[in-house]
Amino acid sequence: MSGTNSKKQMISEGPIIILVEPQLGENIGMVARAMANFGLDDLRIVAPRDGWPNEKAISAASKADHVLDGAQIFDDLSSAIADLNFVLATTARERDGHKPVQGPVSAAKELRVRFKRGEKIGILFGRERIGLRNDEVSLADELVTFPVNPAFASLNISQAVLLMSYEWLKSGLDSETDIPHQSPDFAPAEKHHLRGLIDQVEEALDSRGYFRSKKKRPALIDNLRAVFSRPAFSENEIFFLRGVFSSLDQYSRSAPKGKSGPGLGGRSADDGLNDE
Amino acid sequence: MSGTNSKKQMISEGPIIILVEPQLGENIGMVARAMANFGLDDLRIVAPRDGWPNEKAISAASKADHVLDGAQIFDDLSSAIADLNFVLATTARERDGHKPVQGPVSAAKELRVRFKRGEKIGILFGRERIGLRNDEVSLADELVTFPVNPAFASLNISQAVLLMSYEWLKSGLDSETDIPHQSPDFAPAEKHHLRGLIDQVEEALDSRGYFRSKKKRPALIDNLRAVFSRPAFSENEIFFLRGVFSSLDQYSRSAPKGKSGPGLGGRSADDGLNDE
Repeated sequence: MSGTNSKKQMISEGPIIILVEPQLGENIGMVARAMANFGLDDLRIVAPRDGWPNEKAISAASKADHVLDGAQIFDDLSSAIADLNFVLATTARERDGHKPVQGPVSAAKELRVRFKRGEKIGILFGRERIGLRNDEVSLADELVTFPVNPAFASLNISQAVLLMSYEWLKSGLDSETDIPHQSPDFAPAEKHHLRGLIDQVEEALDSRGYFRSKKKRPALIDNLRAVFSRPAFSENEIFFLRGVFSSLDQYSRSAPKGKSGPGLGGRSADDGLNDE
Repeated sequence: MSGTNSKKQMISEGPIIILVEPQLGENIGMVARAMANFGLDDLRIVAPRDGWPNEKAISAASKADHVLDGAQIFDDLSSAIADLNFVLATTARERDGHKPVQGPVSAAKELRVRFKRGEKIGILFGRERIGLRNDEVSLADELVTFPVNPAFASLNISQAVLLMSYEWLKSGLDSETDIPHQSPDFAPAEKHHLRGLIDQVEEALDSRGYFRSKKKRPALIDNLRAVFSRPAFSENEIFFLRGVFSSLDQYSRSAPKGKSGPGLGGRSADDGLNDE
């Protein structure tokens, strides 16, 4: 097996998607797009109702042409899976219980394990209206069913393909969860920056008589410090806020709009975040 | 919070899905279907291009009529999120890094925790062609991005809604979700409170000529909104900050120390946190 040489290569390998007698070209196109979104490109179609190629499929694929161009057409399901080692069938309905059933996450993990082992793997998706017939399901090794609202359980086939393709891609990511949670790319500022901001605001308020009585002053100052400390502002954010407070503090409302109110002395408005 | 009385009830609760200027009725219909598949039913639409109601939406919804019938239409995004506490924006592109970014699994878990706490939560989805604009992203608290094939990254909006709805449902099945989430024990304020604070500061700065040139104005306003949105201020914090800004805005430095500068008209200093 290849698939480990480069990221690019890995992202075009995976299970073969097999559509059984799809009815609408639009759905086939959207299946191709969903596959491409998650790095799959091997599509097989059993007896498409409206023949092949299909113009509506092409326009619905939104440029996932490589998937449609490479699609193989088969007369029957048995031929379509003849060269595969392991086949999953997707199903919404309860089946007879002869085969193992699992959800998409564990199914994708199992597929990944088999794929790494060198097996050729495929996933079956049934017709829009009636899904897979029992004789078709019987050709599969295991079943996948989706966790859905029981009162509204019918997934569009392109949506079902999307979910399996998505779980396939996720099963190959290093972390189990998914994309690592990226915190904003700035750290909380060193405390002296925060101190500078708070001192500035305190002084500006004080000069306006904001703290009023001596009795209330300590609690008000506690509040002020709490509110400005809690967000863990970054250095850039603090720089920006100091400009805002300078403008409010040092200039009066009367300054004509658009003129250089805060340009001198205080921080000017284009300091700060904007230039990062 | 309700939601624990019966399974039936739980399955119709969850995040509000907000579509920003969707272009195609077919997509709106498929969004409704995807939501219904995973038990969501609260849809808001900002300025749908082709008006509302939309025949194509109805036919694409495949009987998810309850979602479309209950959809609320808004003129602008700000009104559409005014009553929400926490808003996620979905995005394919790299953004400027002002906000935390996570994948759909951890995003859904975070939503679940907030939902259990009683917060009103929403997820934004942008236009088909260009997604969300920066000024719209700036209104959100955090970003979600999907693990996709970098070479074919553009998800259809109904597919993006499907993935988030699916992960939402899964997050409710997952026992891991119940791990207590360490965060401040107060909810972010409903967005209209934040809006009020930002509008107040913008106006006070504008009257001082802070935004200077027309060219720089949009970026400065984006910065301002980003800095005030990022901390997810609670209602009490916002109340307190509005008092601070009122004092700075409406009273001059000349007021004698200790006298009742801000006592009339503006908020007085002892409003807010101190009384909690």
